[in-house]
Amino acid sequence: MRYAYRTGLTGSLIERADQIRISDEAVAEQCRSLRARLLKLADLDPELGPDGLLCWGSMADRPDGAELLFLGLDGDAPCFAPLIEEGQTPGMQAYAVWRQLDMMPPEEASTYAAARSLIEWHRGHLFCSRCGTRSRVTKAGWGRKCPACDAEHFPRVDPVVIMLAEYEGKALVGRQPRFPPDRYSALAGFVEPGEAIEEAVARELFEEAGVRAKEVRYLASQPWPFPNSLMMACIAPVEDDALTLDIEELEAAMWVSKEEVAASLAGAPDAPFIAPPHFAIAHTLLRAWVESDADKA
Amino acid sequence: MRYAYRTGLTGSLIERADQIRISDEAVAEQCRSLRARLLKLADLDPELGPDGLLCWGSMADRPDGAELLFLGLDGDAPCFAPLIEEGQTPGMQAYAVWRQLDMMPPEEASTYAAARSLIEWHRGHLFCSRCGTRSRVTKAGWGRKCPACDAEHFPRVDPVVIMLAEYEGKALVGRQPRFPPDRYSALAGFVEPGEAIEEAVARELFEEAGVRAKEVRYLASQPWPFPNSLMMACIAPVEDDALTLDIEELEAAMWVSKEEVAASLAGAPDAPFIAPPHFAIAHTLLRAWVESDADKA
Ligand SMILES: [Zn+2]
Ligand SMILES: [Zn+2]
Repeated sequence: MRYAYRTGLTGSLIERADQIRISDEAVAEQCRSLRARLLKLADLDPELGPDGLLCWGSMADRPDGAELLFLGLDGDAPCFAPLIEEGQTPGMQAYAVWRQLDMMPPEEASTYAAARSLIEWHRGHLFCSRCGTRSRVTKAGWGRKCPACDAEHFPRVDPVVIMLAEYEGKALVGRQPRFPPDRYSALAGFVEPGEAIEEAVARELFEEAGVRAKEVRYLASQPWPFPNSLMMACIAPVEDDALTLDIEELEAAMWVSKEEVAASLAGAPDAPFIAPPHFAIAHTLLRAWVESDADKA
Repeated sequence: MRYAYRTGLTGSLIERADQIRISDEAVAEQCRSLRARLLKLADLDPELGPDGLLCWGSMADRPDGAELLFLGLDGDAPCFAPLIEEGQTPGMQAYAVWRQLDMMPPEEASTYAAARSLIEWHRGHLFCSRCGTRSRVTKAGWGRKCPACDAEHFPRVDPVVIMLAEYEGKALVGRQPRFPPDRYSALAGFVEPGEAIEEAVARELFEEAGVRAKEVRYLASQPWPFPNSLMMACIAPVEDDALTLDIEELEAAMWVSKEEVAASLAGAPDAPFIAPPHFAIAHTLLRAWVESDADKA
């Protein structure tokens, strides 16, 4: 498939085989395959070879007490990950794994992202939200079922908008208080119930920076496994460049030119900010904006 | 704001005032306002006036035992909805409310959709998914908090892709077994953890219809409050028109021309299928495809 904008963490070579994972017998058959392999994880983090590729063991490496998560088929090789329901607190230690993502080809990062998101989801959803009973893994890790009320629960994916406001040839970047020093990025926020993507972009830009979107153009998307977001990158021309920052969310923000963003993406020493890493969609978004012709001032 | 494609259930005139709902005192102050109003609901369904508009009462109409959900500000009027944690089973009776949505202007449907989604979310999430304890409403209805483990839970929004496969000037429509007679629509499915929108479109088209996407173009989005989806409409040129249907998901599918889709959207008696209602993004997507020039055969 041809992507308009290729994002990081996409393009896994493993085909999710839904017709297998919905059948306990079909999953059991894949488990017994001599070609079956098990992703090597250090709790939630990947074990990487020197080539930046994921490491795989055999089914004999299954840790004690681990359920199995069926990731899908790589050609005719069934791929599993160990699903340990209790372990590292969800959401922790993400910055350490960023250094590993930096080494990984996007296809590998994509495979890992799916496994990590699912394992974290299970850890935060051990109990039925409808009745409070401890639920059980179903569908080879792609769901949980409550033995008391029969409710089925499916992995949560949180849609997040990430956007560049644009005004007279400049784009708006900001920094959250938790960012590393000098890092600036596109603004972002969760889509709320009852909102379209375009409405969430407009709301977040107004809430965080006080700017009003005139229109919203979608560019690309990316899964973000910290823990389970779907990032959707947009560009939004705005009415005015006067900023009113919500300093709880954004400790600083600035309008930057294409030349300045290009310098930051290139890591130039005199660049006005440190850009997000190449595997983050904010990087893809900034690059797409720099390379676009339509919006030059 | 100008929309590339205006979808139904969008454009609420109520501004979500996040700076109010995060503060218990600010919410209490809005409750005491003489301009405060309360959305009239018959359990989950709207009460509509003869003009198709939502009906609002005063805060004195708050039902016994109802929490309050702060929807936001309509100008200087704080708008609330009654949040009854137990009631109609989530997911039921959606077809009845479709007849009401058919009458409502999109701005009204948008306001209602946010309220309905949130109320249904609470009803399915009374218990902490992390520890099983009954949780409590926080942030004026925009969250829940667990008194035992302190976990905060926020309303879930499920991203869903809905797409037209396209091949030599024709588009693919299908019908799910639960559809009303003669109704066909775009194919759809949930985005899974670890997937981009574009990957979910390609996976669903292959799983359900056996066609391989060459590329994916995003068009527009819409919230869908049954119970809490974010619909993202795309067009995907595919490699071939040979179909292999997953009959659990699609009982029939067919390739249709722009003329045939136009007849269906117009409700013509000789149209090949009955189109989705105007407030559904599938309708917007079919119309956008008919009106597009770029892809004519
Ligand atoms: Zn239950
Ligand atoms: Zn808890």
